[in-house]
Amino acid sequence: MDDKKLAIIATKGSLDWAYPPFILASTAAALGYETQIFFTFYGLQLLKKKLALAVTPIGNPGMPMPMGMDKWFPVLGMTLPGMQGMVTSMMKQKMKSKGVASIEELRDLCVEADVKLIACQMTVDLFDMERTEFIDGLEYAGAAAFFEFAGESDICLYI
Amino acid sequence: MDDKKLAIIATKGSLDWAYPPFILASTAAALGYETQIFFTFYGLQLLKKKLALAVTPIGNPGMPMPMGMDKWFPVLGMTLPGMQGMVTSMMKQKMKSKGVASIEELRDLCVEADVKLIACQMTVDLFDMERTEFIDGLEYAGAAAFFEFAGESDICLYI
Amino acid sequence: MDDKKLAIIATKGSLDWAYPPFILASTAAALGYETQIFFTFYGLQLLKKKLALAVTPIGNPGMPMPMGMDKWFPVLGMTLPGMQGMVTSMMKQKMKSKGVASIEELRDLCVEADVKLIACQMTVDLFDMERTEFIDGLEYAGAAAFFEFAGESDICLYI
Repeated sequence: MDDKKLAIIATKGSLDWAYPPFILASTAAALGYETQIFFTFYGLQLLKKKLALAVTPIGNPGMPMPMGMDKWFPVLGMTLPGMQGMVTSMMKQKMKSKGVASIEELRDLCVEADVKLIACQMTVDLFDMERTEFIDGLEYAGAAAFFEFAGESDICLYI
Repeated sequence: MDDKKLAIIATKGSLDWAYPPFILASTAAALGYETQIFFTFYGLQLLKKKLALAVTPIGNPGMPMPMGMDKWFPVLGMTLPGMQGMVTSMMKQKMKSKGVASIEELRDLCVEADVKLIACQMTVDLFDMERTEFIDGLEYAGAAAFFEFAGESDICLYI
Repeated sequence: MDDKKLAIIATKGSLDWAYPPFILASTAAALGYETQIFFTFYGLQLLKKKLALAVTPIGNPGMPMPMGMDKWFPVLGMTLPGMQGMVTSMMKQKMKSKGVASIEELRDLCVEADVKLIACQMTVDLFDMERTEFIDGLEYAGAAAFFEFAGESDICLYI
């Protein structure tokens, strides 16, 4: 299967949606896929040296809340100061206790497996970001360049 | 067109985002596509025997609110206790009045049309779910197994 | 590359998620791709003559807030009346100051580049919308018709 190609467009920047691109990319790479991820819009947050990803249960009605928290804190409670940090921290602990790698570890795994990580230059400019904020080894390119690979891919996912 | 293949990764667990995977899968199956849906992350909620899906207008600015509710209840009002249940109930009534099948019915339709429904075993373990919570006839597998089908698919959608 | 095909299913109706389908479609069209966008669910909002798209920072923890607003207004503050309009307006100004085209302009660009825009007839009926609300030149069709193109596409994205 070593001629297969996976192209991912990663657009989300929250903690929960940070897992899918890295898990799918590292799994595909392990299966012999040539894999590229194009990080654009909020997805650029996943490339920062210092990750500051959070998760909010608001707007996430399918999220199984740990310990039945949804019964104690209905939607209004979720807007209280500190609640987002608390839920984020609980999710990280949950992942760790279950042996799921952290986002940093999954990202390293992708780099080691030769997954090509591409930052969308237009978004970098748009949000006045600096290349020094991001991890080393990235490519910076536009959507047009990414289409060259995506157009030849066997699977192309917009996440 | 009976050699075509559709692969869907279903990751969302809210009422509104429960429709697309089942509608697209049943439509494709009716057109002769071999179809598989891989349910992972919050998407596993769609496989429960007792569905408890809700929809929230928060974080959903494109949602056309029934009866101009958005004018009466701006964002703060949407956080009031009971509001999510009310909006969920209104959406279900709307769908029913328009003759749209319920999620349960659409899911049954997929099963009858031989759409293969696969639950992500890693997520099941992560959230301490039991197989008895889910409908019968599912396959349990990991992302690697799903790639075998997805890599050969004509269309692969991440929902 | 002029035989390539890009199929997009546009399902989101907020201001931020309005950019990806139009940017990706116009980029692909410029590269010679035959491109079709199928607007369904909340995505139909993107086809209205009078766009009323908003963006909410709630449920969007990866959104880099302009001017550090997230430090002044934590989640609860974001629910205050007027806040969504303020953030929407700031995003529009940001885009404009950076020379990014508006959604209307990007949409026009797609039309001029012969991107085929298709409105999901089922959703139009479901939300009791009128064809007069939408821009001219649209096609109205169902998911089954869209699969004919998507099944032959090189890239198919669910946005």
